[in-house]
Amino acid sequence: MTITTTAGPGPAGWSLDCYLVTDRALCAGRGLEATVAAAVAGGATVVQLRDPHASGRQLFDLATGLLQCLEGTGVPLFVDDRLDVALAAGAHGVHLGQADLPVAAARRLAGPDLVIGWSVHDLAELEAATRLPPGTVDYLGFGPVYPTTTKTDAKEPLGLDRLARLVAASPLPAVAIGGITVARAAAVWATGVDGLAVVSAVCAADDPGAAASAIRAARSAGRR
Amino acid sequence: MTITTTAGPGPAGWSLDCYLVTDRALCAGRGLEATVAAAVAGGATVVQLRDPHASGRQLFDLATGLLQCLEGTGVPLFVDDRLDVALAAGAHGVHLGQADLPVAAARRLAGPDLVIGWSVHDLAELEAATRLPPGTVDYLGFGPVYPTTTKTDAKEPLGLDRLARLVAASPLPAVAIGGITVARAAAVWATGVDGLAVVSAVCAADDPGAAASAIRAARSAGRR
Repeated sequence: MTITTTAGPGPAGWSLDCYLVTDRALCAGRGLEATVAAAVAGGATVVQLRDPHASGRQLFDLATGLLQCLEGTGVPLFVDDRLDVALAAGAHGVHLGQADLPVAAARRLAGPDLVIGWSVHDLAELEAATRLPPGTVDYLGFGPVYPTTTKTDAKEPLGLDRLARLVAASPLPAVAIGGITVARAAAVWATGVDGLAVVSAVCAADDPGAAASAIRAARSAGRR
Repeated sequence: MTITTTAGPGPAGWSLDCYLVTDRALCAGRGLEATVAAAVAGGATVVQLRDPHASGRQLFDLATGLLQCLEGTGVPLFVDDRLDVALAAGAHGVHLGQADLPVAAARRLAGPDLVIGWSVHDLAELEAATRLPPGTVDYLGFGPVYPTTTKTDAKEPLGLDRLARLVAASPLPAVAIGGITVARAAAVWATGVDGLAVVSAVCAADDPGAAASAIRAARSAGRR
């Protein structure tokens, strides 16, 4: 598939602009699907289902529900870690960490069309990503940018300078993640990244749609 | 694939006779691969890699190592829960619980050749298994027969009488699991089950090969 790095989802591909990573606990008040629907209405361009404590069956049911919820929006659903769930549910992509299934094996199993994202934390991991055969991975996730509370096994925060160096060296579209808030969004956009991934900034917002919209609007502010 | 319910692995299929479920902690003393190799040399006919705390990458690496270890033995490797790992590593099967990926979705993704086993705990679940389209599931796992310490989320033990009723009603080859020891093996065989699944009885044995051999030998005792 083609990932556009310009604004807005469209028939040519999807935009990584505002990449919502779900957290069921943070969405508990209004519900996962209502939160996602509001975020997408406000401008979220990708939804990643992440729920490391869910069983395979729960994750499959959540993915199936979110796919129905996203139908007709042009916004793709990616599943964190579980390639089997992504493929079985008919999701559009999978996001893999360094501790997940090796990306080359995942690509062989997934075929050419599924989007595969890969988390990268430092230059050594970026170099490994650069050495992959073309088409193995579609985009990279860089983080955590800031300290994060939604991922218990997160590494040391990169900060903006190291993020900017990774983005500059990345051969692939890059999404920044980790502690990104509406207030911090412009500074993260200024690193040149192709998208901002947010968890609590949208899931825990009073108005997830307004938060998603503000994350995207900060892009122009970050480029001034 | 064909599962034979007669003794011994062979070109016509595999036997469920002595179905070893791995537990890395219990194998820690001698190592997982050495334990599996010894068990297979003694007569284990199936190996299931189960490691619910392993990451996708760890599980993939463990599966790859065990497949090399099993090469040429005729003994298949099944992976617990993670269909993606089973397929990516080239394992022969996957074992799914009721909380794992739905078996119909798993079969669609896996294609016809991968062995799919399914855990069943009561008559209602057995009836659900009976209603599946033929070829969805290849064998059933019934348990726990006895209280077990190697599975923290195990249900109430079935006991031998309920196990025997499930086996009698099962349209598919059935493996019993849960607290089965060499001493208990003949009594479990007497229920008419097609195979005994063992974890600590083999993984924690001083001599895993002798334990596997004794599990199989008890079959004739159980039929007296």
